[in-house]
Amino acid sequence: MPKLELSPSEALYPVPVVLVSCGNQDLANIITIAWCGVACSKPPLLTISIRPSRHSNNIIKGSGDFVINIPTQNFLKETDICGTVSGRDKDKFGLCNFTKADPSRVRSPMIKECPVNIECKVTKILSLGIHDMFIGEVVKVHCDISVLDKEGNMDYSKAAPIVYNQGEYWSLGKRIGRYGFSAEKEA
Amino acid sequence: MPKLELSPSEALYPVPVVLVSCGNQDLANIITIAWCGVACSKPPLLTISIRPSRHSNNIIKGSGDFVINIPTQNFLKETDICGTVSGRDKDKFGLCNFTKADPSRVRSPMIKECPVNIECKVTKILSLGIHDMFIGEVVKVHCDISVLDKEGNMDYSKAAPIVYNQGEYWSLGKRIGRYGFSAEKEA
Repeated sequence: MPKLELSPSEALYPVPVVLVSCGNQDLANIITIAWCGVACSKPPLLTISIRPSRHSNNIIKGSGDFVINIPTQNFLKETDICGTVSGRDKDKFGLCNFTKADPSRVRSPMIKECPVNIECKVTKILSLGIHDMFIGEVVKVHCDISVLDKEGNMDYSKAAPIVYNQGEYWSLGKRIGRYGFSAEKEA
Repeated sequence: MPKLELSPSEALYPVPVVLVSCGNQDLANIITIAWCGVACSKPPLLTISIRPSRHSNNIIKGSGDFVINIPTQNFLKETDICGTVSGRDKDKFGLCNFTKADPSRVRSPMIKECPVNIECKVTKILSLGIHDMFIGEVVKVHCDISVLDKEGNMDYSKAAPIVYNQGEYWSLGKRIGRYGFSAEKEA
């Protein structure tokens, strides 16, 4: 049976869902972003795409930095709120009862309640269509020990990130393998 | 308790795992990519990042197109193989028993066994460090009806994509919400 041919769309799944915080301690905002990915490992570069009309777009263009905060499933409602409410109308830190934590290398405040915070400095902005893509260099990573295992490695069942599939939030299942396992078996 | 401060790294999770096919019917290759994301919705643009030394990097620079094939968990071993074996040494379609399917708008063959195939034409290549980032415009999407529900929408439990967390392959859990649910509840 042939496949259906569909019109062009972004179509990719699964993708991350992160809370991008920006601004400063006095005037801060949060925007939920799923159009987010890894662009390069060395230097470590991440991309986030934000429509020019969004409040955070102007803030980040002005400040030149942002923080990617990775929420746990416990913050699903807050994640949805930060993606549907505008920071022009509401203080989203207050609305979500999130606490501003001090970053090390940037000015954008971090969200304390997220177990992982990734500080990024903007290195490039590409105007691509209805979204601008910001490329950010990772300058510091913060990690809560509550999401680490006994060896000090990330335990993603504890980190419990939200997975995004084209408009749907999903939970993570279980670990089914490690990169390179096929070669190990053959060796 | 304060968080641990870690050295800069790409750190982002969860991210997709896709099989990028390239070349043509006679000389085709497949590379597994997790550094992949959505850059823009209109036009629909996706990014994939590939080291310059990789076989697929040169092929895509030459051809100007690629296909993002989204594997199911049934193809976990093949996904790992296509990320660890070089196409210079092996025919990965043959090695994985994958079937070349004809694309509509590009030359890169698609992987029939993957339920979703996204044809992309390269619009921009950024040399960012140890990775080049290719921005591809989606020109056609193919979808197997076996991963659709009765209403014709994607059923991600049937699509069963692999989720990638920094070197670990994970399964998808269950649906925990839809975009906009917090606003609906308040309305």
